[in-house]
Amino acid sequence: MAKELKELTSRSENYSQWYNDLVLKADLAENSAVRGCMVIKPYGYAIWEKIQQELDRMFKETGHVNAYFPLFIPKSFLSKEADHVEGFAKECAVVTHYRLKNDPDGKGVVVDPAAKLEEELIVRPTSETIIWNTYKGWIQSYRDLPILCNQWANVVRWEMRTRLFLRTAEFLWQEGHTAHATEEEAVAEAKTMLEVYADFAERFMAMPVIKGTKTANERFAGAIDTYCIEALMQDGKALQAGTSHFLGQNFAKAFDVTFVNKNNQQEYVWATSWGVSTRLIGGLIMTHSDDNGLVLPPNLAPFQVVIVPIYKNADQLAQISEKVDEIVKKLKGLGVSVKYDNNDAKKPGWKFAEYELKGVPVRLGIGGRDLENGTVEVARRDTLTKETVSMENIEQFIADLLKDIQANIYKKAADFRASQTREVNSYDEFKEEIEKGGFLLCHWDGTPETEEKIKDETKATIRCIPLDGDKTPGTCMVTGKPSAQRVIFARAY
Amino acid sequence: MAKELKELTSRSENYSQWYNDLVLKADLAENSAVRGCMVIKPYGYAIWEKIQQELDRMFKETGHVNAYFPLFIPKSFLSKEADHVEGFAKECAVVTHYRLKNDPDGKGVVVDPAAKLEEELIVRPTSETIIWNTYKGWIQSYRDLPILCNQWANVVRWEMRTRLFLRTAEFLWQEGHTAHATEEEAVAEAKTMLEVYADFAERFMAMPVIKGTKTANERFAGAIDTYCIEALMQDGKALQAGTSHFLGQNFAKAFDVTFVNKNNQQEYVWATSWGVSTRLIGGLIMTHSDDNGLVLPPNLAPFQVVIVPIYKNADQLAQISEKVDEIVKKLKGLGVSVKYDNNDAKKPGWKFAEYELKGVPVRLGIGGRDLENGTVEVARRDTLTKETVSMENIEQFIADLLKDIQANIYKKAADFRASQTREVNSYDEFKEEIEKGGFLLCHWDGTPETEEKIKDETKATIRCIPLDGDKTPGTCMVTGKPSAQRVIFARAY
Repeated sequence: MAKELKELTSRSENYSQWYNDLVLKADLAENSAVRGCMVIKPYGYAIWEKIQQELDRMFKETGHVNAYFPLFIPKSFLSKEADHVEGFAKECAVVTHYRLKNDPDGKGVVVDPAAKLEEELIVRPTSETIIWNTYKGWIQSYRDLPILCNQWANVVRWEMRTRLFLRTAEFLWQEGHTAHATEEEAVAEAKTMLEVYADFAERFMAMPVIKGTKTANERFAGAIDTYCIEALMQDGKALQAGTSHFLGQNFAKAFDVTFVNKNNQQEYVWATSWGVSTRLIGGLIMTHSDDNGLVLPPNLAPFQVVIVPIYKNADQLAQISEKVDEIVKKLKGLGVSVKYDNNDAKKPGWKFAEYELKGVPVRLGIGGRDLENGTVEVARRDTLTKETVSMENIEQFIADLLKDIQANIYKKAADFRASQTREVNSYDEFKEEIEKGGFLLCHWDGTPETEEKIKDETKATIRCIPLDGDKTPGTCMVTGKPSAQRVIFARAY
Repeated sequence: MAKELKELTSRSENYSQWYNDLVLKADLAENSAVRGCMVIKPYGYAIWEKIQQELDRMFKETGHVNAYFPLFIPKSFLSKEADHVEGFAKECAVVTHYRLKNDPDGKGVVVDPAAKLEEELIVRPTSETIIWNTYKGWIQSYRDLPILCNQWANVVRWEMRTRLFLRTAEFLWQEGHTAHATEEEAVAEAKTMLEVYADFAERFMAMPVIKGTKTANERFAGAIDTYCIEALMQDGKALQAGTSHFLGQNFAKAFDVTFVNKNNQQEYVWATSWGVSTRLIGGLIMTHSDDNGLVLPPNLAPFQVVIVPIYKNADQLAQISEKVDEIVKKLKGLGVSVKYDNNDAKKPGWKFAEYELKGVPVRLGIGGRDLENGTVEVARRDTLTKETVSMENIEQFIADLLKDIQANIYKKAADFRASQTREVNSYDEFKEEIEKGGFLLCHWDGTPETEEKIKDETKATIRCIPLDGDKTPGTCMVTGKPSAQRVIFARAY
């Protein structure tokens, strides 16, 4: 069984297969009977709960409140913002009827043709339209602003090629939707949320990200500016991990949402929206995990420590358990989450393999010899190293170790990204380098045409125009025209 | 403005209108552009978050984990359990297409007839079918059991007559779905969750409930036994507040979910499911609130204390704020949630009315005189009484007061229920008494026919067969046939 558990495809053999094997074998998620929709299994969902908990706290600390808006959007709403309909109204789940009836010809049920909706309802692919239609009733004066709402919800986009967590027809996410009296305030909000996302990615996911803006081609449908965080996966492909949009007055105009400003003038309201999704779990996996299984950052692991007793008989187990109870209590006192696996039906070897696969940051093994010596075996998942440590002050040792692991996996990912990020100055060189993966920093003339040409010829897209770093102008690697600064190209998920 | 805020319809005038006014004016929820779907506004959602937080903790303490299953259910799944399809497959949202296209005849988008689904998808009205189809892959042996999953999700039932929180087409809920190796274990699980719900209702919502089982007529579609908690609203109508179902092997048989038991025999798996929804917020409102607005139990109030400064100028506000900061810090230290409303754009009178309407359990007012005297004015929402209290140890005074309020509103609701609960022994008396509302304890012959007759003639249903209390047998008030024990009749939401 331990062997079977470990039978992951290796990353070098087939990265994509490794990813899929890992998601299934680590019990994170699986495909469901409904095309493109996944079941998020308890262990995967526990990671999502940790993500939610931290983000929700960060949203509230920055003044946001949660609310809930309808799952369904009247079809006509999607057409009200011209760009938005192009981006979202095409591949979506359409509700056309509201009743089934017994099949007159036999068994089962059929759609009742008499129960056709006057106007079709779309299962929300994103909620700008229904929310701005609602905000119209909430906003009359500048005194009603800002509105700083977030919702945790499921959304549906009818994707043709799906991959667990990374691209699924239904996924879970949060979507913030804010309304402001001034352009400056809305832009500041979009940037604040970008910082929240970047901070979360780096401090909790241990995933280094580059903050930037999207080009017009890659922008959210209906946005004036899309801010994003981009991460680099182990296979050299980029992952867009979160976006924050400055929407200008586009949705206010589409839904006629105006307010009386301080000078007693009628004005359209300014908007932002921002979101991250269960896709983050895919990013988490592809940033840290290895051929032995998941590697979870301590700050998001469902449990940070697992304790496995190694015993010959019930008496010895009882002695070990007594000691473990003390350790568990002390660890919890320091805020460390811990699982004691005393399941007698599984052998220690099986448990070791299982928790390695599941990426538990620290494993403690305690046997008869340890009881005698007052020691415990400490194994860390990130380096796969083991050491024997005194039980004295073990809780502080573990708490420090967890911090160390969190820092270490971040550093490892940051070093990897640094090694895969390089400046490229000619298009010939670009075509060669893009095959090796990674972030390529290149000059680009700023036109959608050149961007399209590069995408068509190399499958690489501009991931973002970085906000930080080198801002030296140059000349486009393709057209030789002026370039304001280097931008980041990569192939992406 | 303060006056406008207070313009609620009184309960005696029109209870139903009072309820609707209150939900809207207290900013809990509103109707959306989509028929039957509500927008849960931030203040209403904050109550839901408190409910979620406490229940989630209670579920985890009883060994459950969260997971997430698809929003969509293939139409054929609903037909697999014969009773279930009768109960749920009729009024539901049906997805028939997966794409829109630009209207060739003009503006906007239309459903693309080329994108018709081979099999229609139903937006989940409840998830037994998709979950048991999934469990089939998770269960082979008794070692895989029990499975104790819960999910927090949205569900859709196409209700014709909707009321905010009480009956909406889309609502939020949790649904637990457990799988067990034995009948005894499954029954015990269903009962455990009934106890969790009753405990939550009484300790957090301060809403007394009667625990019982449903009659066959009122049972969940597909269940062997439905356990429920029933509460009595102020207008004398009953509200079903939570249900826990023992499903026997019905869904295991429908989805062919078997396991090898300890004796190496193949057996069908035993099941339960249990849920509560945003409907609880409707129950909360109708249990405690009054003609002045909401009355929230301290254990579920988004904030338990609001502090309103009463000042003549900026200097005085600064002095008050300094004092308030100390009080806030001390209150938070005792785990009391508090809002300091120093918004200069609103007058104290407006704020008093606003927080009364919103049901904040305790309001503190601090003015210049209070600063001089070292006092604070404490107003409690439940009794609408005020007293002047020393600032010394104010935090402990408030913490005790919150406990007192929680106990007091529970007692008030329990006393009301006791006054509205009576034994009725003849059907003539019943027809008279049912017009007055309340819980009527009556003997019934145990047949669906008699139950139907009573419902048709009086609109009263059997809310439950109580688990506790008087078990004396008797004779049916309608037919004179033997009755095992009195059951509870009421008109219900």
